[in-house]
Amino acid sequence: MPAATTTELERLLDDDVPHGDLTTEALGIGGQAGVMEFTARDPMVLALVDDAAAILGLCGCEVERMAMSGSRLAPGAPILTARGGAAGLLRGWKVAQTLIEIWSGVATATREIVDAARAVSPHIAVACTRKNTPGTKRFAVAAVKSGGAVMHRLGLSETILVFAEHRGFLDEPLATTVERLRRAAPEKKLVTEVSSIEAALAAAEAGFDVVQLEKFAPADVATLAQRLATGPHRPVIAAAGGVNASNAAAYAQAGAQVLVTSSPYMAKPRDVQVKIRREQQTN
Amino acid sequence: MPAATTTELERLLDDDVPHGDLTTEALGIGGQAGVMEFTARDPMVLALVDDAAAILGLCGCEVERMAMSGSRLAPGAPILTARGGAAGLLRGWKVAQTLIEIWSGVATATREIVDAARAVSPHIAVACTRKNTPGTKRFAVAAVKSGGAVMHRLGLSETILVFAEHRGFLDEPLATTVERLRRAAPEKKLVTEVSSIEAALAAAEAGFDVVQLEKFAPADVATLAQRLATGPHRPVIAAAGGVNASNAAAYAQAGAQVLVTSSPYMAKPRDVQVKIRREQQTN
Amino acid sequence: MPAATTTELERLLDDDVPHGDLTTEALGIGGQAGVMEFTARDPMVLALVDDAAAILGLCGCEVERMAMSGSRLAPGAPILTARGGAAGLLRGWKVAQTLIEIWSGVATATREIVDAARAVSPHIAVACTRKNTPGTKRFAVAAVKSGGAVMHRLGLSETILVFAEHRGFLDEPLATTVERLRRAAPEKKLVTEVSSIEAALAAAEAGFDVVQLEKFAPADVATLAQRLATGPHRPVIAAAGGVNASNAAAYAQAGAQVLVTSSPYMAKPRDVQVKIRREQQTN
Amino acid sequence: MPAATTTELERLLDDDVPHGDLTTEALGIGGQAGVMEFTARDPMVLALVDDAAAILGLCGCEVERMAMSGSRLAPGAPILTARGGAAGLLRGWKVAQTLIEIWSGVATATREIVDAARAVSPHIAVACTRKNTPGTKRFAVAAVKSGGAVMHRLGLSETILVFAEHRGFLDEPLATTVERLRRAAPEKKLVTEVSSIEAALAAAEAGFDVVQLEKFAPADVATLAQRLATGPHRPVIAAAGGVNASNAAAYAQAGAQVLVTSSPYMAKPRDVQVKIRREQQTN
Amino acid sequence: MPAATTTELERLLDDDVPHGDLTTEALGIGGQAGVMEFTARDPMVLALVDDAAAILGLCGCEVERMAMSGSRLAPGAPILTARGGAAGLLRGWKVAQTLIEIWSGVATATREIVDAARAVSPHIAVACTRKNTPGTKRFAVAAVKSGGAVMHRLGLSETILVFAEHRGFLDEPLATTVERLRRAAPEKKLVTEVSSIEAALAAAEAGFDVVQLEKFAPADVATLAQRLATGPHRPVIAAAGGVNASNAAAYAQAGAQVLVTSSPYMAKPRDVQVKIRREQQTN
Amino acid sequence: MPAATTTELERLLDDDVPHGDLTTEALGIGGQAGVMEFTARDPMVLALVDDAAAILGLCGCEVERMAMSGSRLAPGAPILTARGGAAGLLRGWKVAQTLIEIWSGVATATREIVDAARAVSPHIAVACTRKNTPGTKRFAVAAVKSGGAVMHRLGLSETILVFAEHRGFLDEPLATTVERLRRAAPEKKLVTEVSSIEAALAAAEAGFDVVQLEKFAPADVATLAQRLATGPHRPVIAAAGGVNASNAAAYAQAGAQVLVTSSPYMAKPRDVQVKIRREQQTN
Repeated sequence: MPAATTTELERLLDDDVPHGDLTTEALGIGGQAGVMEFTARDPMVLALVDDAAAILGLCGCEVERMAMSGSRLAPGAPILTARGGAAGLLRGWKVAQTLIEIWSGVATATREIVDAARAVSPHIAVACTRKNTPGTKRFAVAAVKSGGAVMHRLGLSETILVFAEHRGFLDEPLATTVERLRRAAPEKKLVTEVSSIEAALAAAEAGFDVVQLEKFAPADVATLAQRLATGPHRPVIAAAGGVNASNAAAYAQAGAQVLVTSSPYMAKPRDVQVKIRREQQTN
Repeated sequence: MPAATTTELERLLDDDVPHGDLTTEALGIGGQAGVMEFTARDPMVLALVDDAAAILGLCGCEVERMAMSGSRLAPGAPILTARGGAAGLLRGWKVAQTLIEIWSGVATATREIVDAARAVSPHIAVACTRKNTPGTKRFAVAAVKSGGAVMHRLGLSETILVFAEHRGFLDEPLATTVERLRRAAPEKKLVTEVSSIEAALAAAEAGFDVVQLEKFAPADVATLAQRLATGPHRPVIAAAGGVNASNAAAYAQAGAQVLVTSSPYMAKPRDVQVKIRREQQTN
Repeated sequence: MPAATTTELERLLDDDVPHGDLTTEALGIGGQAGVMEFTARDPMVLALVDDAAAILGLCGCEVERMAMSGSRLAPGAPILTARGGAAGLLRGWKVAQTLIEIWSGVATATREIVDAARAVSPHIAVACTRKNTPGTKRFAVAAVKSGGAVMHRLGLSETILVFAEHRGFLDEPLATTVERLRRAAPEKKLVTEVSSIEAALAAAEAGFDVVQLEKFAPADVATLAQRLATGPHRPVIAAAGGVNASNAAAYAQAGAQVLVTSSPYMAKPRDVQVKIRREQQTN
Repeated sequence: MPAATTTELERLLDDDVPHGDLTTEALGIGGQAGVMEFTARDPMVLALVDDAAAILGLCGCEVERMAMSGSRLAPGAPILTARGGAAGLLRGWKVAQTLIEIWSGVATATREIVDAARAVSPHIAVACTRKNTPGTKRFAVAAVKSGGAVMHRLGLSETILVFAEHRGFLDEPLATTVERLRRAAPEKKLVTEVSSIEAALAAAEAGFDVVQLEKFAPADVATLAQRLATGPHRPVIAAAGGVNASNAAAYAQAGAQVLVTSSPYMAKPRDVQVKIRREQQTN
Repeated sequence: MPAATTTELERLLDDDVPHGDLTTEALGIGGQAGVMEFTARDPMVLALVDDAAAILGLCGCEVERMAMSGSRLAPGAPILTARGGAAGLLRGWKVAQTLIEIWSGVATATREIVDAARAVSPHIAVACTRKNTPGTKRFAVAAVKSGGAVMHRLGLSETILVFAEHRGFLDEPLATTVERLRRAAPEKKLVTEVSSIEAALAAAEAGFDVVQLEKFAPADVATLAQRLATGPHRPVIAAAGGVNASNAAAYAQAGAQVLVTSSPYMAKPRDVQVKIRREQQTN
Repeated sequence: MPAATTTELERLLDDDVPHGDLTTEALGIGGQAGVMEFTARDPMVLALVDDAAAILGLCGCEVERMAMSGSRLAPGAPILTARGGAAGLLRGWKVAQTLIEIWSGVATATREIVDAARAVSPHIAVACTRKNTPGTKRFAVAAVKSGGAVMHRLGLSETILVFAEHRGFLDEPLATTVERLRRAAPEKKLVTEVSSIEAALAAAEAGFDVVQLEKFAPADVATLAQRLATGPHRPVIAAAGGVNASNAAAYAQAGAQVLVTSSPYMAKPRDVQVKIRREQQTN
């Protein structure tokens, strides 16, 4: 099922082809029948294939999917085949291809972090932030899930995450803050971002459910984990700020239970090879 | 003036904060007065500052801009200052920040290619492709312009660009194709993508106005440029496929007149530092 | 700040007055100046006053607000005053009035439950469900907050709430389910709905953070609370299903820590008196 | 045929499940096949079943409808059956259920008034006002029709209804007003709201086609009806303000020809029982 | 007040200038200050001036209106003046100009029919059909009103108009149809379209409130009017089908009380002269 | 394939029938089966038939198309046949009919200009301006293509067209302007509008690719064409301003290579005959 609504997919097409493909029309080839095949050129974790297929469907093509979002594809692996008039194939081509390429890049990069961390700590969770490009949340969330991670938070309206920027408006002991939050949001975990081991310990003592360690070195995560392990307060330890595939194992080893990361959003797109050929008969 | 419409900016906010900032509300700090300052942490070419300011305006803040989109900022340079209730500041904070960070990354990377190429060939144009993340065209185009480049094509409806995928549906001499296109689109330049020197020469001879060289090495661009320079056909030479800041000078040196690139869209975001502090009195 | 976007408020007006007020136009009175005053006729907790004011602003009126959303108003208390041409006043009148009336009804009913419960248990939370009329979430959430409650969940994408309908697709011990959920969503509280004391105890033992008691009598809530109080597992006890202002105190007394309710959505609207009068001069 | 557009139905789903059902995904049960059955728990007049079915269709389910909007259902009567993956069933479940429950409540309450009035006066019309919750007109109108009533007016742009608030801007005899309106809107009935028998008689004499009696007791309606029956002016008598199922017969008996009411919008939702069960094979 | 919403006006601009004015940007003149004046070149009845002004406002210009929609303008009469940066002026120029030109054409043509008919029959109404270009209803209705006419019907949902196409599905005497419609829609006038004098008389006898004469010659209208004048049934006589400025007086003379016409929608646009000049200083 | 998106087509229906067809519902005929046939009454070049068919499909009808957009139809030629319930047929009838009528008028008028010009100059291009009614670009572009013409420019963002209004902001030789534009937009043809032969020659000399002659008489076009034919600069000659079917041949004869025209947008709609009849059985 596509992540985006019909309305949203129509808008993507409209952004790129608001009034038809001028080249195809000028060449007068739109009515010929063709086949278009998408295959993986890079190894990739596939994402948004249902949305890409739906876009081609909106262009009047019949689409067969050969792989599901979340699959790990080797180079050459088939993704989908579309059949239809040249006008439809050429209209949806790049929008569908770009959608898969960009978000499979994100899914692949997400998967790399998940794999790296789970090699060390099989049950660790990877949570991606909301720092995706504004306007692309629908696709970002889908790609993150295809990569095996979860969303850290979808937005501001559904989670409690206390930043220093919030605390700057408060004049009260941290425990009082926690107590007030607990009453105000009894069905939510209370999360706070901290920048030092001392602040993390204070947050744990005050009663936060999750301490989100901002830009801690893995060694500092380990120190904190050990100190918390021997104390009465056992918040979930989430490492955030600079977490990526190269250090995910180190953070996992250090005792982080959740890795919070924005790094997949900067992933290089994964190449999809597209072949278009004429078929003998037009339908 | 913002690149996006009010409706689009409201949607960005809505994606992130559909029903208010739960943390701020649970803490009960929304009514306090505050100031929020955005400054460049990385060196950057600024982009989308008017849109970021408009987002904060939609949150009820008063915003003063200190820099314009397209400006080159050194670390520490002020970008904007917003004043208002904590609820409004904290609501718009990350959406506005992320918008500037991501698209200033694109603008900065664009500028690097422009600068590299123009150091060699002062009048060369850099043109960015339409391979931006689907759904972000409004911002992508604005960032590309802030970086000193132009858009290669906005979409399929307004330019003639003949790919091999089009030619596969044709059975006629190339000159016939050009003749037909010329009549069909007399107010457009005729562009075609080619993958070899021979194909480029054939396209030139057939009468295309622009030959877009797909994944040519700079040396091959130079060879082609020399051969065209001595012949009767003088299409614009556009180098495409793999063009980036590290090779832009080489392509310019080789004689490309236009550099077509998607590489800025993969740029790392540029960090914006955000400081929020309480003010003494609430309005 | 309005809960709804400009686009949404324009749509409300458009639903009611797509092409002007025919009566006003046929009478030819649109250009006369007038004043319109909204006052509470029923006692009420006010809601959506900012949205109502924004609607009148979209009609070209100048609006002064006399009360804030969340205020408790006695009959006769002023809400807002709008000034402008008769065309604008008569255009926005009923949309603005109806918006306040309906959602102040919800806010007032919410407040009654909160007050009843807190008279017994000062720190208890009241959480309203997502069973608002589809399409009105923006207003429902705002009214719930104005009434002093929180949202139980905004939707399916941001909370873990296991129903029997989910468990029907599973063949595993409950503790295994909890363990898997804990890893999949380490930053979320795990909530499950149960229909019997035994099921609640089993859920507690399995490790759920919140047990949501569906249609328990207060006495059964009390029984459960006592049994949990003496055991090792201390999930939050949420009472749901049939909770309303008349029994909220009983549930609170019984030991529920959260009252989950849809009952405010069925509240009777609170009457707002609207007086419109001509002013001497037209602007 | 659904009352709402695809775009609107997608928005309802999106309000509730913007990024998938987190619980279902965390449990990993989305791919299992299931069946979901909706049956009436309360007696009800069914409404919006086509929209509910369309919502489930958008979730990828196959839906069979067993009853049509407008049908009177006894407890236990089947409404619809949906088949599909657990992900789709659980995604659309509550949105579809709530839509039917709330608007069948309105349809049922509407039908009660219609039935009560027609038992006395078989040809009387019941007309519901536009005081539905702003933003729900599409559904409100459909439910009103399913309940056997009509809309009093859809909005301000298509009917002539003169309120005291309009007359306050006029300085002319009522007959002059009627004469002007008749010319301005020759294809519309002229309606005016009055608050006393004298005002009603004056409106009749001035030539209004319909007198809308605001908050008249049935006895006063009867008095007016008798006085009009013996005079030369015979406007349609519409009773409005406080009309509901308990007094509809009395108003009908008194001689009202139209009953104008908002009371169905405050109806209690009618319960729909939903059963979801696993099927043996996944498609 | 504009007829269109902000969202709609933004869409008009976006249709024409989705990503800025390329020419202005390439010339580098966007930041210079300028003044733009709109004056009538043709005599015209002005329409949509508020919407045009709002469009220029969205482009960042300050706008002063010199004439109101509905005014009769002589050639050379000033309409509006806009001040701002060249970028904003050139961006909104044609969209604003075209909007006024096209719809002032409709308003002017409407006014011609109204004037022609009222010269003969001072109280006759002119009603324009819903056969405007699909998608332009908002503007069409506004222009029709500016021309002094009313809308025949806004759409299908709010009026009773029985066509032969409806009657083809019925097997009952016409009086029965009227009786049923009267009960179903007691607050609406019953209108039917007829194609012959006999059908019109039958409709009158059956009790329709308005007979809409489709493509009657004026002489036939006169015949019908005389026959109805001496009989007991006095429906409103509406002439439709082919009514335009050249025959409006004849139809009015013949006794039509309403002229139903689509002809203004085919009006030639009225020319607006636009002058743009540089100002000395940029803001 | 329809030119408009589903969302746009739903909006057209919604503009006309937001809450069902009141007449059909009041008559109680909606459930009967019927057939609706569209045939050409006027000779016409058909346009927007796919969109009309899609609209009827949204109303639940099965539609068979007998002709394609762009076809030349003689009176009586079948266009489409729709089958379905009376409710659906009557709902979509006028919106579908009006869409075809209005835009086939534009297509037919476009075709007349193309035919007239090509009778003289077989390879001449006809280009329609962007002066369509704001908000109808989607349909206007489709109709223009169906008539055999192209779009002059889709909007401001994708072409370089220098007006006198731009030059008023410049203080530099024309050749400098061209040089700057060439660098800024190397993939675009440079077009400028001129009002005299001298200005056209100057533009040619300065290097513009296309000179757009504003309101030149054919004789002046011929004079210019001859002077350019003997000189070194050979811009494309585009005649604009007042070009229509009656003078297109003269402009073509005079040597214009492109005819730029807005005149088709003022075309009279082409009549479509619609017949609706009852079928024996309801599905």
